[in-house]
Amino acid sequence: MPRQMKLGLFVLPSGQHIAGWRLPEAQADMHVDFASYRTLARRAEEARFDMLFVADNDGVQAGAWSREALSRTANRFAAQFEPLTLLSAIAACTTHLGVVGTASTTYFDPYRLARQFASLDLLSGGRAAWNIVTSHDASAAANFGIAPLEHAARYERAEEFVGLVEKLWRSWEPDAFPRDKAGGVFFDPARLHAQHHEGRHFRVSGPLNVAPSAQGHPVLVQAGSSGPGRDLAARKAEVVFTAQTNLRDAQAFYADIRRRAADFGRAPDALKIMPGVSCIAAATEAEARDRFEAMQSLIDPAVGLAHLQTLLGVSLEGHALDEPVRELPASNAMQSRHALFLGMAREEGLTLRQLYQRAAGAKGHLLLVGTGAQIAGTLARWFEEGAADGFNVMPPYLPGGFDDFVTHVLPELRSRGLVREAYAGTTLRENLAQ
Amino acid sequence: MPRQMKLGLFVLPSGQHIAGWRLPEAQADMHVDFASYRTLARRAEEARFDMLFVADNDGVQAGAWSREALSRTANRFAAQFEPLTLLSAIAACTTHLGVVGTASTTYFDPYRLARQFASLDLLSGGRAAWNIVTSHDASAAANFGIAPLEHAARYERAEEFVGLVEKLWRSWEPDAFPRDKAGGVFFDPARLHAQHHEGRHFRVSGPLNVAPSAQGHPVLVQAGSSGPGRDLAARKAEVVFTAQTNLRDAQAFYADIRRRAADFGRAPDALKIMPGVSCIAAATEAEARDRFEAMQSLIDPAVGLAHLQTLLGVSLEGHALDEPVRELPASNAMQSRHALFLGMAREEGLTLRQLYQRAAGAKGHLLLVGTGAQIAGTLARWFEEGAADGFNVMPPYLPGGFDDFVTHVLPELRSRGLVREAYAGTTLRENLAQ
Repeated sequence: MPRQMKLGLFVLPSGQHIAGWRLPEAQADMHVDFASYRTLARRAEEARFDMLFVADNDGVQAGAWSREALSRTANRFAAQFEPLTLLSAIAACTTHLGVVGTASTTYFDPYRLARQFASLDLLSGGRAAWNIVTSHDASAAANFGIAPLEHAARYERAEEFVGLVEKLWRSWEPDAFPRDKAGGVFFDPARLHAQHHEGRHFRVSGPLNVAPSAQGHPVLVQAGSSGPGRDLAARKAEVVFTAQTNLRDAQAFYADIRRRAADFGRAPDALKIMPGVSCIAAATEAEARDRFEAMQSLIDPAVGLAHLQTLLGVSLEGHALDEPVRELPASNAMQSRHALFLGMAREEGLTLRQLYQRAAGAKGHLLLVGTGAQIAGTLARWFEEGAADGFNVMPPYLPGGFDDFVTHVLPELRSRGLVREAYAGTTLRENLAQ
Repeated sequence: MPRQMKLGLFVLPSGQHIAGWRLPEAQADMHVDFASYRTLARRAEEARFDMLFVADNDGVQAGAWSREALSRTANRFAAQFEPLTLLSAIAACTTHLGVVGTASTTYFDPYRLARQFASLDLLSGGRAAWNIVTSHDASAAANFGIAPLEHAARYERAEEFVGLVEKLWRSWEPDAFPRDKAGGVFFDPARLHAQHHEGRHFRVSGPLNVAPSAQGHPVLVQAGSSGPGRDLAARKAEVVFTAQTNLRDAQAFYADIRRRAADFGRAPDALKIMPGVSCIAAATEAEARDRFEAMQSLIDPAVGLAHLQTLLGVSLEGHALDEPVRELPASNAMQSRHALFLGMAREEGLTLRQLYQRAAGAKGHLLLVGTGAQIAGTLARWFEEGAADGFNVMPPYLPGGFDDFVTHVLPELRSRGLVREAYAGTTLRENLAQ
């Protein structure tokens, strides 16, 4: 069997483009409409996607945004479904699609998280995955009565948290339940393992009170790009999500993660590395460009600026919109983004308006605008030249932005034999291994 | 419209009778089989039940049970689905049935709980309810790294917790989302209320990042029987679950809760008081008795004794099974149960075996064995004589124990006009008000 791309559908109800919800053809109320998620999930399953992925934040992601700017965007987790409840409902309406939920090791209790993901995994027939994040959002911290943790402290907690969750998922051996009616034995006590974890951050007796699923336990997904984040991914993750905007950097990231995985004694193919990609696909390049320009023209300056400020970690107050970007103070947060966008502004002589428009399209992910053949060509190159094992498809708006991918890009990938025609198995882990 | 009974389906995957899972016709693996829950939920909806209710414990409920005794029962939450994930999946497969999840104010974070229940409520179209419990189980406490809280401390925390969750559920006004594409306004900042709670136990900024549902927010359910528990129910609950075994005590409880509610300024009819009832129904009384005796004969002595010990809060080691029950030391826990069962043993001269068999049938709830007409007659009397607004139906085994209720009891209730023919609305709160 030749190697094939893994495909995830990344769902923000507002779409990935910061102004996607304002397109006339976009559905702006998906954040309160479960039926739309069900339809979208079923389409992803018909398209033989590996998984549907939902991001998360434990609160309205206000950051430094004014309430006025917040109210003019749909992209800051203001009012969305919570991942575990949403994905459980989606799992009940699908049969093969993996469901990937983001949950933070900083704000969850490990027993609660282990239990809810195990239950999702069991009821879906072994299709769940946990996207491990450590959260730096101060708005979320304030909803749990704590101060935001520093990067190192978050990752130290995450290491213990993930190890503990994995232990809890091994509480019951797969054949622990004879359910012998005549003999009166429901479970075999020798196949139950309590765990008794005592660590620096957590003390949890166990055992977990959920039985293992058809795939044993949920798949682990990770998206860290810092050194500790990459190490956590290389040691634990089966799927790595990443934001990459050019082939060379994506290749370097791909090689680095696989090298780290090998250093930890893992087979590098045990990890699937999946960059995010926002595709604006149409029958002709001109049509795709028009759709993209329509979205770009709908970017509210207050929203575009607030978004750029968040990416750069600096205030842009007092800077003129239509003059070339001036030098900005250094920032402690997101240094790679800071350098990327300021370098772009300097090289191309961009105005501030042009710069925030650049940032707003895919929010730091790869953005491809064109025909199905053009986009499939780029994806194929990344896949074949050591930059990706597949992609997390981020529709710029919904639901049409996903339909466009299925209509224009997917047949091109299929004709090249790059994506599956049928699912290999019923669990997510089986399909990832295909 | 004459007053009609509210009906809930209380689902333990093992059935309510402690040996129900051992019947040849019982499905013993429902604890790992979501498809059975889906079928059961759809049957409850066809039968026009108000709600499906799941109990919960945040861990294997070991208490003083030996691992050996535990392994011989299916009733201690050893390995079951977690309520919020399970009910989200059930909600996706139903359209009118309410879904009631138990969750503890002692082990949940209030923001997490408010968010997950709001999300369940939104995706179900306004059919969610939260059954508030405070948890005294030590096995659960050990899964969160804390010592079990005393009764008073649990209720003090619960009071603040419930008030905070209600505040979070009011974060967004129902019309807070104009989603004005042309004007670029997604939400109206004046209709968003952050909350900023600072209490004795919790500091939570808010706002909640889930929009209100078709019924506004989840229905509140409570089952406390102590003074503080009754006060919490009388102040906050819309549904009160209770365990009552005779008409007189049930009437006293019913009157007491309504009086307390009136004292708090509430209309007593705003609370629906629903005792649990385990029905063993058949075409003839003899057939029903046979089914009951079959279950009684399957009670494992080790399990029956462990269960009785848990109810009484005392050790029964060294007591002979087939001699009359001797006097037992007093117990601090569950004084009402202690007095009930010891009084029963003394009055009727029961042996220890006979006593644990009494306790095992419905685990402290009303147990009715007979024809549909006999059982409907008792339920009608409780409903008409001030003991109940409806019942939480607890099938002794599954799935047949529920089918028997639908086949034999429900038509009798319907012919008396005591239960609905059709749902009044689509939300749980609308149907409860019918």
